[in-house]
Amino acid sequence: MPDPYKVDAYSVEGRVDYEDLIRKFGVEPIGDDLKERLKKDAGGDLHFLLRRSIFFANRDLSWLLDQYEKGNKFYVYTGIAPSGSMTIAHLLPFIMARWLQEKFGAEVMIEIPDEEKFLAKRDTKLTIDAAHELAYSDALDIAALGFDPKQTTILIDTDHAGVLYKQAARVSKHITFSIVKDAFGFGNDTNIGTLFYTSMQAVPSFLKSVQKGRNIPCLIPLGIDQDVHFRVARNAIEKLGYYKPAIMHSRFLPSLKGGPKMSSSDPDNAIYLSDTKETVERKVNRAITGQQSTAELQKKLGGDPDRCAVCQYNRYLFEPDDRKLERIFEGERNGTLLAGDHKKDLAAKINGFLAEHRKAREKLKSRIGEFIPKP
Amino acid sequence: MPDPYKVDAYSVEGRVDYEDLIRKFGVEPIGDDLKERLKKDAGGDLHFLLRRSIFFANRDLSWLLDQYEKGNKFYVYTGIAPSGSMTIAHLLPFIMARWLQEKFGAEVMIEIPDEEKFLAKRDTKLTIDAAHELAYSDALDIAALGFDPKQTTILIDTDHAGVLYKQAARVSKHITFSIVKDAFGFGNDTNIGTLFYTSMQAVPSFLKSVQKGRNIPCLIPLGIDQDVHFRVARNAIEKLGYYKPAIMHSRFLPSLKGGPKMSSSDPDNAIYLSDTKETVERKVNRAITGQQSTAELQKKLGGDPDRCAVCQYNRYLFEPDDRKLERIFEGERNGTLLAGDHKKDLAAKINGFLAEHRKAREKLKSRIGEFIPKP
Repeated sequence: MPDPYKVDAYSVEGRVDYEDLIRKFGVEPIGDDLKERLKKDAGGDLHFLLRRSIFFANRDLSWLLDQYEKGNKFYVYTGIAPSGSMTIAHLLPFIMARWLQEKFGAEVMIEIPDEEKFLAKRDTKLTIDAAHELAYSDALDIAALGFDPKQTTILIDTDHAGVLYKQAARVSKHITFSIVKDAFGFGNDTNIGTLFYTSMQAVPSFLKSVQKGRNIPCLIPLGIDQDVHFRVARNAIEKLGYYKPAIMHSRFLPSLKGGPKMSSSDPDNAIYLSDTKETVERKVNRAITGQQSTAELQKKLGGDPDRCAVCQYNRYLFEPDDRKLERIFEGERNGTLLAGDHKKDLAAKINGFLAEHRKAREKLKSRIGEFIPKP
Repeated sequence: MPDPYKVDAYSVEGRVDYEDLIRKFGVEPIGDDLKERLKKDAGGDLHFLLRRSIFFANRDLSWLLDQYEKGNKFYVYTGIAPSGSMTIAHLLPFIMARWLQEKFGAEVMIEIPDEEKFLAKRDTKLTIDAAHELAYSDALDIAALGFDPKQTTILIDTDHAGVLYKQAARVSKHITFSIVKDAFGFGNDTNIGTLFYTSMQAVPSFLKSVQKGRNIPCLIPLGIDQDVHFRVARNAIEKLGYYKPAIMHSRFLPSLKGGPKMSSSDPDNAIYLSDTKETVERKVNRAITGQQSTAELQKKLGGDPDRCAVCQYNRYLFEPDDRKLERIFEGERNGTLLAGDHKKDLAAKINGFLAEHRKAREKLKSRIGEFIPKP
């Protein structure tokens, strides 16, 4: 029997059994055949997030590729609940979205639901204006990942409600309290803004079809904990006469200490895009590894890459070269790679990425309006 | 014991006991003292809708007049669920709003919630775009009542969600499913758009304060069936730090056949602003009166103005002169006024009003943009 674990829209606990999750959520694995097709359609290249099954499950991806191969291009939708300071875990769907833009010529639509953050935090002092500022900060972080401004639109819910709300109302007509109660675990004490919110999250997955006046396929890369929003919305969207969006689900980047998911609400176990060089070094230095307690034992017995956050961060984000990654894993396994060097290498990679990212972010500050349409 | 009757946000049934309703809803009557104050503050004039207690109840009206007398002017908010073709019953809050604008120099904000109409009609084919067209038609009817375009703003929810949604989210955080379940009789099968909607209706009652950056009193004239929205919203609005809106509640214009409320969903028992001269004559001719079954009996026994739709329409809308109204009532009571003449007189008054209204409406067609801000 697998260990107990929990994955829902609001929390991830325990050691996640991803095979089990595929059955539980009723999604499909991204198997070798789908990977081959993606590679071919992408022009012979497959992103390492797919090669390594970080994006591991899907809904209707095969259908989406049918459409693509018939010349019916898709667009990409993803998003983030505003954090003000994104972690490296937040990057996964955006890296995938950017790759899809580059390889498939896909337009990208990004939603940052500032009201969700505000509505969900029952006990904090976060105002809706503060949430809105966090959203703008995230928009800069996202744009800095290299999206093409001509092919990318960032929508911030309270700014773009003029576009979103009408369509959300259409979705909401097909979603009852029972449905969101069961799907999200809401109760009688849930506020009505939170009850309604999933309708707002649904909109960008068919908005392009509304705007163009014809059905356009949509692909959503997201963390599998967010799948529930679209389990609910896909039925409603189909009733409105639009294509149900296809979805690619990612695994969770583990926390530095080995928890199931790096979370921005646990600062010591997360690396933020705003972290300084020294902070990154300090945090990585305290990360869990799969190694033995002493250098001597490590040399003798070796370690376990699956339990090693440092190996996993290389796998998920910082070592695109499969052969180099295998050398890191091998070094961990056979004990030739010492924890100190291992961590120093990762910290340098992260800091290299963050330095570039900060530069790109700074440059975009005056140009963010190219991504965010005037409300 | 009073007859059973029912008044909620969605229906009115039975013979409404307005005294009982005041207790049940926890509102205050508009007594002689308040009428005197209103008259004085209005410059010596009191609208017949107040003189005749058609507007009969209130929340915080005395506080509002305190503020006014201290120089703290109020603005007026009212609205209508889009009908596409307003009935004369719909006019009551707008006539009051216009009078308040004229006598108190009040700005007027009007909300037309096209999404509410769309969301509430579970079984019809009404699209949200069709509801939106109805809203524009109503906007013209409202503007044609003589509002000052410089002092009047009409907001249509799907067009102005860019302004409304953010504030609605703030309201919604303080309203749970339990609250709307109890207040509106919603259940597990209610759609989440309808659950959320009351937050959108709340916004114009404090929007001016948001826009001006300081607290501005608001007065809402409305049919008492809509009070429930503000029983819910006033607490939330207070928690946000704004004044709770004051309210003036009207009675219901009876239906032509004597039902408790003229409803636009019952075409034969309602008079629409779009009805032709002949239609008005035909409908009024079939209206219930308080008279006896024959002219002879009528002359002998007299009639009952309270049961007579014709008398009531004069009282609510078409005979502003109290002495002339008393003569009509007296004629009904003592039997000197025959049903045929009685009806002919009313039909002529209604048609006179509708002819003027249509002219004003036609003139405004090209100028409606002065009332509806660019989204």
